[in-house]
Amino acid sequence: MAYYVGIDLGGTNIKAGVVTDDGKMINRLSIKTKNTRPMEDIIHDMGKLALDVIEDAKLKVSDIDAIGIGSPGTPDNEAGVLVYSNNLHFNMAPMRALIREVIDLPVYIDNDANCAAMAEAVAGAAKGTKDSVTITLGTGVGAGVIANGRIYSGFNQAGSEFGHTVLVSGGVPCSCGRKGCFEAYCSASALIRMTKESAEANPDSKMNDLIKRDGKVSGKTAFEAQRMGDEAGSKVVETYIDYLADGLANAINAFMPEVLVIGGGVCNEGDPLILPLREQAMSRPYFGPGVPKTEIRLAEMGNDAGIVGAAMMGKSCFDNGADGKKSSL
Amino acid sequence: MAYYVGIDLGGTNIKAGVVTDDGKMINRLSIKTKNTRPMEDIIHDMGKLALDVIEDAKLKVSDIDAIGIGSPGTPDNEAGVLVYSNNLHFNMAPMRALIREVIDLPVYIDNDANCAAMAEAVAGAAKGTKDSVTITLGTGVGAGVIANGRIYSGFNQAGSEFGHTVLVSGGVPCSCGRKGCFEAYCSASALIRMTKESAEANPDSKMNDLIKRDGKVSGKTAFEAQRMGDEAGSKVVETYIDYLADGLANAINAFMPEVLVIGGGVCNEGDPLILPLREQAMSRPYFGPGVPKTEIRLAEMGNDAGIVGAAMMGKSCFDNGADGKKSSL
Repeated sequence: MAYYVGIDLGGTNIKAGVVTDDGKMINRLSIKTKNTRPMEDIIHDMGKLALDVIEDAKLKVSDIDAIGIGSPGTPDNEAGVLVYSNNLHFNMAPMRALIREVIDLPVYIDNDANCAAMAEAVAGAAKGTKDSVTITLGTGVGAGVIANGRIYSGFNQAGSEFGHTVLVSGGVPCSCGRKGCFEAYCSASALIRMTKESAEANPDSKMNDLIKRDGKVSGKTAFEAQRMGDEAGSKVVETYIDYLADGLANAINAFMPEVLVIGGGVCNEGDPLILPLREQAMSRPYFGPGVPKTEIRLAEMGNDAGIVGAAMMGKSCFDNGADGKKSSL
Repeated sequence: MAYYVGIDLGGTNIKAGVVTDDGKMINRLSIKTKNTRPMEDIIHDMGKLALDVIEDAKLKVSDIDAIGIGSPGTPDNEAGVLVYSNNLHFNMAPMRALIREVIDLPVYIDNDANCAAMAEAVAGAAKGTKDSVTITLGTGVGAGVIANGRIYSGFNQAGSEFGHTVLVSGGVPCSCGRKGCFEAYCSASALIRMTKESAEANPDSKMNDLIKRDGKVSGKTAFEAQRMGDEAGSKVVETYIDYLADGLANAINAFMPEVLVIGGGVCNEGDPLILPLREQAMSRPYFGPGVPKTEIRLAEMGNDAGIVGAAMMGKSCFDNGADGKKSSL
């Protein structure tokens, strides 16, 4: 049995776990990132956390094949460097070299959205497939593409930025500077914006009562209003689902995955979201007669996605002979 | 030196050539498809054409590693079958089995847009790169994706249908049944539609004189009017370039290719198209600081793309150990 350490680096916490080669997490530990510290200190702590989690699993370093790190931002896995990260104020961080000062194992780095997709592909909703796409609807729209069992991230490892493909040319401004991106219409933030606008435009809508009750607008407001029979709330849900179906159909046409996984808090709405979404999203892609169709499924890995995905990304690189020991910086 | 036969199957002609392993075409032959014939007859003729082109190159069948076929429609390369093709009225055509009745070589099949992308990647505008995307602006918008040196076509070999990603949600109807596809705004047909609409709405536009002179609207009409200082013509060109820049930026964000190749008749317009297009398309993708950027280049393979791409697709399958002899039908 081979084991892998997955490290999920976030702005608030650093989580690590030991993962088996079929994606089962044995244990996990977590420390605070304290992300105002110098990046060298943070990265050294990641190495120490890897040592701790191996010991905690009653294993030795020699039982582990590789360490995989999932990080926000853009990695250069060949150089072993995190090129940059907005959230972490990292800039050309020599992760591999610094972690290997603490622990002598191959180290691989990839983007957190790509790792989440790897987790779903190995042990989650897309288990058993070689080609899948995982789209996460959160503050933004994250996308990870698995092609032939490996993460597909383009020549510069910056992909896929499918959340920043324009769905509504000339539409609402997106955080990336373009107008009308998938993210600007289908993230949880976009749903909140649409809910707010509709509540203001429809003073009689039950959405306003819910906003008063909760003290805020959330991604749940419109769905809850819809369940109460509110017309304006239903319209917000319908509009959101229509855009989302277009975005998912775009992802299917672009990548033709066997399974398209969707995750993120919005998916907790269940059937009122999923049933019409699936129907609409599946009626739009361009499948010719006799061509097998993509399946749309809900993400299954939840909070484990980060650690398991990072570990399985590490396994994938290790199995494919990538050099996780040399560092070009 | 290894050799490959590439066959470019079209609705009007079947073209074949012998190609070296670095993508140089030695010779070529062509016959009429006569596509109202039974598909068995057409496919047998493809096999005979392969024999002829090998003989014409003064080679023996044993000098050839494999035959690659580029075809419209959706292939199942594993089964050796063309699943369906609108243009050819083929339906579950057992291409591999029928061609191997005529000539004893491994046979591989892929979509013509994918083969065009392979030609550019091996011997054309994206030569020397491992990750490229080729987009062809013709009657439709074709797209081929090369990932890590191989054609990426998804689990069902139906991809990439990037031309059918929605750019303008709820926009003009597309041939695929959706509304607002990239193809519906950026194909040569879309440019002709926009030109026609603008000419009608602006009776004083020089576009109307050009249409009268040529007896038809073409993809060149608006560009020629622009060169004559016509305001409405310039506006058509600007609008077309704006949509196209959005579509290309979408392809870059989705796939992060090292080179994005564009081809098709529209590209003959040269600088008035390419210079503003490149500037706009490159300002829109989501590259973080320090992240290498995609280059946009014009296609170089022209009419050779079909044969060379089919041959190099065959080489890629052969090199990667795909079984081009067994047929599952």
